[in-house]
Amino acid sequence: MDTVAALDVGGTTIKAALLDTRLGVLAERQVPTARGADGTALAEQVTALVRELGGTTSVRAAGVVVPGIVDEQARVARFSANLDWRDVPFGELLEARLGLPVAFGHDVSAGGLAEFRVGAGQGCVDAAFVAVGTGIAAALLLDGRIRRAHGLAGEIGHIDVGHRARCGCGAVGCLEAIASASAIARNYAERAGRDVDGAQPVLELARDGDALAAAVVSEAVDGLVHGLRTLVTLLGPEAVVLGGGLFAAGEFVVAPVRERLAASLTFQRMPDLRVAKLGPEAGRLGAGLLALDLLGQRL
Amino acid sequence: MDTVAALDVGGTTIKAALLDTRLGVLAERQVPTARGADGTALAEQVTALVRELGGTTSVRAAGVVVPGIVDEQARVARFSANLDWRDVPFGELLEARLGLPVAFGHDVSAGGLAEFRVGAGQGCVDAAFVAVGTGIAAALLLDGRIRRAHGLAGEIGHIDVGHRARCGCGAVGCLEAIASASAIARNYAERAGRDVDGAQPVLELARDGDALAAAVVSEAVDGLVHGLRTLVTLLGPEAVVLGGGLFAAGEFVVAPVRERLAASLTFQRMPDLRVAKLGPEAGRLGAGLLALDLLGQRL
Repeated sequence: MDTVAALDVGGTTIKAALLDTRLGVLAERQVPTARGADGTALAEQVTALVRELGGTTSVRAAGVVVPGIVDEQARVARFSANLDWRDVPFGELLEARLGLPVAFGHDVSAGGLAEFRVGAGQGCVDAAFVAVGTGIAAALLLDGRIRRAHGLAGEIGHIDVGHRARCGCGAVGCLEAIASASAIARNYAERAGRDVDGAQPVLELARDGDALAAAVVSEAVDGLVHGLRTLVTLLGPEAVVLGGGLFAAGEFVVAPVRERLAASLTFQRMPDLRVAKLGPEAGRLGAGLLALDLLGQRL
Repeated sequence: MDTVAALDVGGTTIKAALLDTRLGVLAERQVPTARGADGTALAEQVTALVRELGGTTSVRAAGVVVPGIVDEQARVARFSANLDWRDVPFGELLEARLGLPVAFGHDVSAGGLAEFRVGAGQGCVDAAFVAVGTGIAAALLLDGRIRRAHGLAGEIGHIDVGHRARCGCGAVGCLEAIASASAIARNYAERAGRDVDGAQPVLELARDGDALAAAVVSEAVDGLVHGLRTLVTLLGPEAVVLGGGLFAAGEFVVAPVRERLAASLTFQRMPDLRVAKLGPEAGRLGAGLLALDLLGQRL
């Protein structure tokens, strides 16, 4: 049986799966990420993982995605803060060990690919996938393909949406510094004087009528609306797929984003706002799609 | 001799030319634009103009560009404030009268096409052309082609750059409302209490040390920097070609834009900022390129 290996490599965890050529999951593993600035430790770990997952099937290719700035054509991670990488030619490193064709990509971009091909963005030609998690990034679909500018496109988390807080990147006003899951948790904790475990408890408090939590969520919504308005004005997408845990809260978050975005537009086309369908599997499925594309078996 | 007709149609003036297949200008005319909400008056005017310009040459195709929201594939102007058009299928209207293949496009997009192919943006794969005139709009080059989202992409003049003035579109904070040539003239006139004829005199006053003019220009530069930072963060262009009369002032305007943009970036790649080469001819040359492309004679 022909299969591909699909791996979504995060700073702490690898989500790996063996997929059939219809993206069906045949086996999966979740393991801690092997660290190392030159990428060889990870290449060896991934090689062992793919052999173990492959079992008796005929693994034809592997797709690996990571966070950061990834040049998919060159198969080089230019920069990844989470992996502590600079200019790591991971595609080559892995292919040399694995002896299989390797596709190497960016996690959010791959998540967008999966949402556009088999998720909430199916059928779109001009669209965006905005992933709100620890950080915020986007995959941009134009004329039916994801456009990456060698990994430099899509950093919507770092556009200035007009607030005064400083972002981890060093700039003031970044979307990520007010609307990411970590920003929501941090902003609530600072004002309430007590720690919370991520954005979920803040969303629940807001839903239950906690004024402080509601204010923090409302500011996050305003930031997202500012960012989406900019995206819409510059790129004219027909749809925006919203991913990440924040939107698991569904209409409680999406409805105010939709209302305020519509109110902020003048001549622009209001995009169809859709909640992502593939959840945390999107990156791994996208990695599988990259591997299948490499084999010319485009779904 | 094979030729194409190239027409840049503005709200008040048509700039028309007869071009050889190497974009050489064989004849040119500038005439007032025939008005009419259904586009037939303009189609008849353009037909007569093309026949007159064509003379004894063999005109093989025509390229026409207009301002507004233009769906180049459908050859329909969805909206053009300057021409008072809504959903005018101008490509079809003109082709029926002219009996020649007609390419129909957007003026700034065509200007970008010309700058990317034969002007300041030659050799770029991911780039932008930002035209600062009465309004501000951009042509976006990604993966070697201009991406238009059916005419909806590129409205950089209407992204919110964080000031309090209201734009003609109805929104507050638009780039166009602080950095367009008309905004510079208006902002200076309001504060100085006397009218000026466009942005040029304000630039000259600023260069001569007039504090009020310098403040107005500096605010325009800040707006442009904010807009360019957003463009760079979202699309990662290798170069940005700056067009329009504002940049005819050269380094007096470009140097502060470059300095402040570089200072505003954290992890992003600083794009190469280049002043457009083709000046007010860019739109007409782009119209000619669209016509030649239609004939498969891509330069």
